[in-house]
Amino acid sequence: MLRTCTAKRAIFQVKAWRRWNSTNPQMAFPCVDRAQERSQLFQEAGFISRKPGMTKTRSTAKTTPSALRNEEPATAIKEPATPVESGPEPIYGKIVSGYKVFQYNKPFLCDHGGVLPRFDIAYESWGRLNADKSNAILLHTGLSASSHAHSHEANTQPGWWEKFIGPGKDLDTNKFFIICTNVIGSCYGSTGPASIDPSDNRHYATRFPTITVFDMVRAQTHLLDKLGIDKLYASVGSSLGGMQSLALGAIAPHRVGRIASISGAARSHPYSIALRFTQRQILMNDPHWNHGFYYNGVPPHVGMKLAREVATISYRSGPEWEQRFGMRRADPSADPALCPDFLIETYLDHAGEKFCTQYDPNSLLYISKAMDMFDMSASQQATLAYKRSQNMYKVDAQNFRLESSAAASKAKSKNDAGVERSSGAIEEDDLVEGMRPLRDIPTLVMGVRTDNLMPVNCQREAARCLRKAGNKHVHYHELDEQKSLFGHDTFLIYRNGCNLVGDKLKSFLEERF
Amino acid sequence: MLRTCTAKRAIFQVKAWRRWNSTNPQMAFPCVDRAQERSQLFQEAGFISRKPGMTKTRSTAKTTPSALRNEEPATAIKEPATPVESGPEPIYGKIVSGYKVFQYNKPFLCDHGGVLPRFDIAYESWGRLNADKSNAILLHTGLSASSHAHSHEANTQPGWWEKFIGPGKDLDTNKFFIICTNVIGSCYGSTGPASIDPSDNRHYATRFPTITVFDMVRAQTHLLDKLGIDKLYASVGSSLGGMQSLALGAIAPHRVGRIASISGAARSHPYSIALRFTQRQILMNDPHWNHGFYYNGVPPHVGMKLAREVATISYRSGPEWEQRFGMRRADPSADPALCPDFLIETYLDHAGEKFCTQYDPNSLLYISKAMDMFDMSASQQATLAYKRSQNMYKVDAQNFRLESSAAASKAKSKNDAGVERSSGAIEEDDLVEGMRPLRDIPTLVMGVRTDNLMPVNCQREAARCLRKAGNKHVHYHELDEQKSLFGHDTFLIYRNGCNLVGDKLKSFLEERF
Repeated sequence: MLRTCTAKRAIFQVKAWRRWNSTNPQMAFPCVDRAQERSQLFQEAGFISRKPGMTKTRSTAKTTPSALRNEEPATAIKEPATPVESGPEPIYGKIVSGYKVFQYNKPFLCDHGGVLPRFDIAYESWGRLNADKSNAILLHTGLSASSHAHSHEANTQPGWWEKFIGPGKDLDTNKFFIICTNVIGSCYGSTGPASIDPSDNRHYATRFPTITVFDMVRAQTHLLDKLGIDKLYASVGSSLGGMQSLALGAIAPHRVGRIASISGAARSHPYSIALRFTQRQILMNDPHWNHGFYYNGVPPHVGMKLAREVATISYRSGPEWEQRFGMRRADPSADPALCPDFLIETYLDHAGEKFCTQYDPNSLLYISKAMDMFDMSASQQATLAYKRSQNMYKVDAQNFRLESSAAASKAKSKNDAGVERSSGAIEEDDLVEGMRPLRDIPTLVMGVRTDNLMPVNCQREAARCLRKAGNKHVHYHELDEQKSLFGHDTFLIYRNGCNLVGDKLKSFLEERF
Repeated sequence: MLRTCTAKRAIFQVKAWRRWNSTNPQMAFPCVDRAQERSQLFQEAGFISRKPGMTKTRSTAKTTPSALRNEEPATAIKEPATPVESGPEPIYGKIVSGYKVFQYNKPFLCDHGGVLPRFDIAYESWGRLNADKSNAILLHTGLSASSHAHSHEANTQPGWWEKFIGPGKDLDTNKFFIICTNVIGSCYGSTGPASIDPSDNRHYATRFPTITVFDMVRAQTHLLDKLGIDKLYASVGSSLGGMQSLALGAIAPHRVGRIASISGAARSHPYSIALRFTQRQILMNDPHWNHGFYYNGVPPHVGMKLAREVATISYRSGPEWEQRFGMRRADPSADPALCPDFLIETYLDHAGEKFCTQYDPNSLLYISKAMDMFDMSASQQATLAYKRSQNMYKVDAQNFRLESSAAASKAKSKNDAGVERSSGAIEEDDLVEGMRPLRDIPTLVMGVRTDNLMPVNCQREAARCLRKAGNKHVHYHELDEQKSLFGHDTFLIYRNGCNLVGDKLKSFLEERF
């Protein structure tokens, strides 16, 4: 028989819940009676009045007492081995404090017709804005990152790009003023599903409007307005950030001096959609998800953990894991088990466990869906522009005057072609047309060959379409297997004091055109 | 807000349950009162006394009536679009009838010390065994396949290798006698977790012993004994079958004339382990899994469906899906939704839905774990041999005399080195040593470059180690992106009347050495 470690799973649920409450005050989740909750969870898990080594039985198992007798007894449960120490790991939004908050107190129309009555954007900055405000770089984040890209006085914890930012570094604070925001839809200080809807003082949950990558960057332009920055020196980002950096060039080309899109894409691809779709399905099938209304109850930690395990597989590469874990087992002398057994399994388990209390599940749903829908093709941009124009009545016309007229003219020029997209194959010409606004913006596109989530085909396509659109300053770099085995996560990892993504980025940003 | 399609999920659960009962009589699951069950499921899903278009609400949602108002009304639920028609799909163990059953009525010791008091192997055959019984080919299956590789009188449905087998075909029935078995641990007629334990007349469930790939082929050798086949003309298989075809060469080299291992491996790799681990975790977290004791209740269909969605991603390749689905949506005019929305999502949904009623969840756990553990390294084989020798007392010594002595000498020669494997990196020398028994067996190894599940590194390693072990007849072929975009599933798919895997296999089998 196979060991199944159910006891360990229940312990995880309890621990995750405890951590969620103790480490995420910013999540603004109401504090429930933890002791009561824990007791309930222990009871559900069959721990209470259970002796170590005794088998937990359910109805059918009662008559088969030898079932699962190899299961770990409750007292034997330990923290999973942490092989993460054996390799480089990104530091991801662990700490959410010390950021500034930009408040936009007018209604904000989203591409798909939803309206946010107001929104906050959490942001942090490094370096100094020069007199003519021409040295600002907007750094866009990946799906689950906070604005804390680098440490500073108000938050001395290392940020997720700690080694990339600083005096003389890849993003050189002697030269540039770096701004990093938490995207709308997220949970690290910006308005997202966990935020309170001012209309009824309850969490938005899944009442939060559908957002797009264009909405994310449109919201950021209001922050730039507030900071008095008319034109960015550069728009820089990786992964989802690589989508945003391009998207900003599409909706506001006059506000962007250069673009760097790393391990990103100009449109999603079905393989990435498939990976994110399954994660969402797994999460939503956790009964605690409760249609997104879990803020007053137990969050869907197990679904979130499992979803993150799938995500983690897509973030790295097989060859890296072969070098790092091979087929080594956590305990070579133990019998085979269905609980984490091989080191790679303890690694995934640990990654899922770490993440599930640090990120709002609904944010994962909204932002990953926005990534799926991302498409810079002209027809898709026209569809959204048309939709915006149709929904403009929902917000104060005065606030949206400029956007409204731009959208209407765009939709008109396309003869509403985008309203229902042809079911035929996507034409590359459509994408080229959609990227035409970026033709005068020097752009760096980078990809990593071991990336399974956003494979180099995506970056090759983006660079090719930019060139076809007439852009004479497209810099394209691809890291092969010799240069990086870290897959999609390559942009997060410094090894031996170096990151080739950072090197190329620095050269690009400091080059004169 | 985002559409979440909860209604659709509940409908799925009901339909899956209905199909499970109506199409799988062989699964020997007790027939429960379906009407009652369905009614209960409908009630749980909030369908009963719910008007079309009304919002299903749970406790917290009650106070947020507009939540999910975009959700599909119950009456609007349709079968998912079936884009599977737009591309080639394998036919996989849909039909489980017409097979023969080999009964082994002695105790069978498994590698990890468990004992099956007896076992059945379901098998089918094509072609005619010649007089000296020298033309038999044992065809090993992938994880979830039945023995029905080709149609025949007793089952006229096409098999999973229908086009590969027949007069003049890749496996030429004019020349060869092809045998295909359902592996032990599976659910298509062979003894597995769904089978009845003769000791108490209840389903084994997770009381079934842990099995290895070596156990699977060891069980097959008893069938060969029964058929009077001392030596196979060839041992052929793909995926898990590619592991088995090699494993048979290791445990009984004198019984194998040639080996063909397609999209297989000589040992597992952490990326594949990670993919299978998450599938198992997802499945086991379905509360209906119930520690494996679901045979008298509702099986864990949702967990199984989600696990299959993850598996499906690993079976194909991004470039294929790019060509096949691109970013096309099931309904381009609909608002974005969290239920299947893009065509690729309906495809995954359909694949999961189709599979979850056709395969026993516990079989997935046992067989996928066996794949994870597969390792032909000498140290691992010695570990298992040692373990067998230690457990030999559990079965009649007479039955296991030969194996026992072989195991003991093997373990001795390794000085018990394998009992606890070193936690250091796996040495390739260890694998070379483990493959030395195959040095005189002409072997074909094939891989596909778009395979994400068992990438070409696995097949290159197997071929390299065979050569290092002194094998002078290693035929190695790799299909590049130009030749196949079908990833791991390449071995299942005929397109335009051809399959390159089949072509190479035929040449290899019919070549004179």
